[in-house]
Amino acid sequence: MTLDEAITQIEPPDHHIAAQVQVRLDRLTKPRGSLGRLEEVAVRYATIIGEVLPKVPRGAVFTFAADHGVAIEGVSAYPREVTQQMVLNFLRGGAGVNVLARHTGVEVRVVDIGVAAEFGTIPQLIQQKVMPGTRNFLVEQAMSREQARRALEVGTMLALDAARDGIGLIGTGEMGIGNTTASAAITTLLTGRPVAEVTGRGTGIDDTTHQHKVSVIRRALDRHRPDPTDALDVLAKVGGLEIAGLAGLMLGAAARRIPVVLDGFIAGAAALIAVALQPHCREYLIASHRSVEPGHQAVLEQLRLRPLLDLDLRLGEGTGACLGMGLVQAAVKVLTEMATFDEAGVSDRG
Amino acid sequence: MTLDEAITQIEPPDHHIAAQVQVRLDRLTKPRGSLGRLEEVAVRYATIIGEVLPKVPRGAVFTFAADHGVAIEGVSAYPREVTQQMVLNFLRGGAGVNVLARHTGVEVRVVDIGVAAEFGTIPQLIQQKVMPGTRNFLVEQAMSREQARRALEVGTMLALDAARDGIGLIGTGEMGIGNTTASAAITTLLTGRPVAEVTGRGTGIDDTTHQHKVSVIRRALDRHRPDPTDALDVLAKVGGLEIAGLAGLMLGAAARRIPVVLDGFIAGAAALIAVALQPHCREYLIASHRSVEPGHQAVLEQLRLRPLLDLDLRLGEGTGACLGMGLVQAAVKVLTEMATFDEAGVSDRG
Repeated sequence: MTLDEAITQIEPPDHHIAAQVQVRLDRLTKPRGSLGRLEEVAVRYATIIGEVLPKVPRGAVFTFAADHGVAIEGVSAYPREVTQQMVLNFLRGGAGVNVLARHTGVEVRVVDIGVAAEFGTIPQLIQQKVMPGTRNFLVEQAMSREQARRALEVGTMLALDAARDGIGLIGTGEMGIGNTTASAAITTLLTGRPVAEVTGRGTGIDDTTHQHKVSVIRRALDRHRPDPTDALDVLAKVGGLEIAGLAGLMLGAAARRIPVVLDGFIAGAAALIAVALQPHCREYLIASHRSVEPGHQAVLEQLRLRPLLDLDLRLGEGTGACLGMGLVQAAVKVLTEMATFDEAGVSDRG
Repeated sequence: MTLDEAITQIEPPDHHIAAQVQVRLDRLTKPRGSLGRLEEVAVRYATIIGEVLPKVPRGAVFTFAADHGVAIEGVSAYPREVTQQMVLNFLRGGAGVNVLARHTGVEVRVVDIGVAAEFGTIPQLIQQKVMPGTRNFLVEQAMSREQARRALEVGTMLALDAARDGIGLIGTGEMGIGNTTASAAITTLLTGRPVAEVTGRGTGIDDTTHQHKVSVIRRALDRHRPDPTDALDVLAKVGGLEIAGLAGLMLGAAARRIPVVLDGFIAGAAALIAVALQPHCREYLIASHRSVEPGHQAVLEQLRLRPLLDLDLRLGEGTGACLGMGLVQAAVKVLTEMATFDEAGVSDRG
């Protein structure tokens, strides 16, 4: 399936299911609505997959890694080689996303979609490098339109593979020194908010570096003038390979009716791209948490998504998505494992 | 150990541990502080138990059930027999708390501390009935001072039993038709907020019933004039047996340096009592979620606790506590399972 085919296959979820799920939730032994957002998530999940009594899904979080040419401008607190080093950490199971994925019982799939280093043969690493990092978008566009499309297609293909493997819940993760800079550029273009409002501290930069980061983004936008009505143009000029991969993953998942649990700001920027390419994709997305990155709030408002968790996370990798996937599993269990008033012999309200 | 002995044994946690835990968290392969409130919980947990590298604790949520004489005044949307019926549902594993406890991997301990019905012999039920429900506090005080003390001691004893069983994390749960009315009365007394501000919809009452509920509480307070500086007086005059049991559980847990994850509003009212009896108890409490009950916000502010989840829950039973306990486990795993920069060969910031 090509990207265009996936985009064509995405349909709005069947909202008749939602009403049937609500009827069941209201028969469970609890005051109506008293499990709040867990009930909302149960409805969303069941509606997406089209089953009133869904099984608890097997989950996988995809951590896409890529480098950013713009990192050379000193927009991050960490050196660029950290992207590669962290990929090895993911593969050894020592990173935050590994710990939280094990906690939630989901698999981590690590994808090299554009790291500026060669890994050699590592069986557990999904090697789909489109190019060894983007170019520095302060001086030239990050990638060609064709490279952006290829990165999107890597993500779509991985979602289809996951569907074949029986994965029923997908989480989004990423690693890429410099990627909050690209995400802020995408967010300002696709939400219309000012650059300064959507540009944050990333891994923890100081005031001077933050002002520099804002200035780098402004100058890049002045130089390339990306067309905000053309998501592929935005992605190619100021995006990132992992961001493109994530957007493609979301589109592939939606084409296969698999709910996607978004991590934080980078995932949010990717979701803006995916939804720009296919607006129905939005209905397949569940926001796990509200990042401390200020641009994330703009993304959530634009996508009309309310996150489940507000834990001041800003690590990325898919850490928040793992916790969110745990809440989705909990919501499915509430829907399917709780006794009804009739089954339990409990009096409902008069 | 008597209640008074437990109260005497509670000491403030050793904050030297906190600094050592922070040093370790800052060496883990993530930007400093980037796991936000998970890091804060890891520090809190390790400090309470006094170990820099704690094991993931075995958890138990205690669901105390009791009836309320004031339920006869029509302050709830559900009939009183639901308390008894729900106890049977808990024991069969069909209630919300059972589903979420299984999800989190914690045990549910169900305690009859004052249900207005006889259960006969049920091995899994912890039978510690102090009296078959409180009296209607609109006309007489809910219980005697001695009964309130006995209910507190049931909770303390159960915490000590749990400590002997190797339980390292305790969650609080309850069931009792009418118990948001008692909790609102306690909250108004111990926070100084107006009755109308801390009285909510409970299981889902309409406007007229809500006004009636506020009026019942006001009249009860006028009649009994509980002394807000005497927590036992408050508990005896307008409290509940499950609320007393929960307060005793918190005190027993703190005496044994076991962190307590609070559920919602009822647990919060119990925490106000526990902290009034021993202010150091506050440092052993972790708030799981912010309930939609308006009085819960007043409790959280009074106790200076910031909840981890904001999921619009209002079921009680310990459902929110189970989700919160899952986050505590996750925080402990972050602290103990993530690789350090040195171990992973990842470059720290310059």
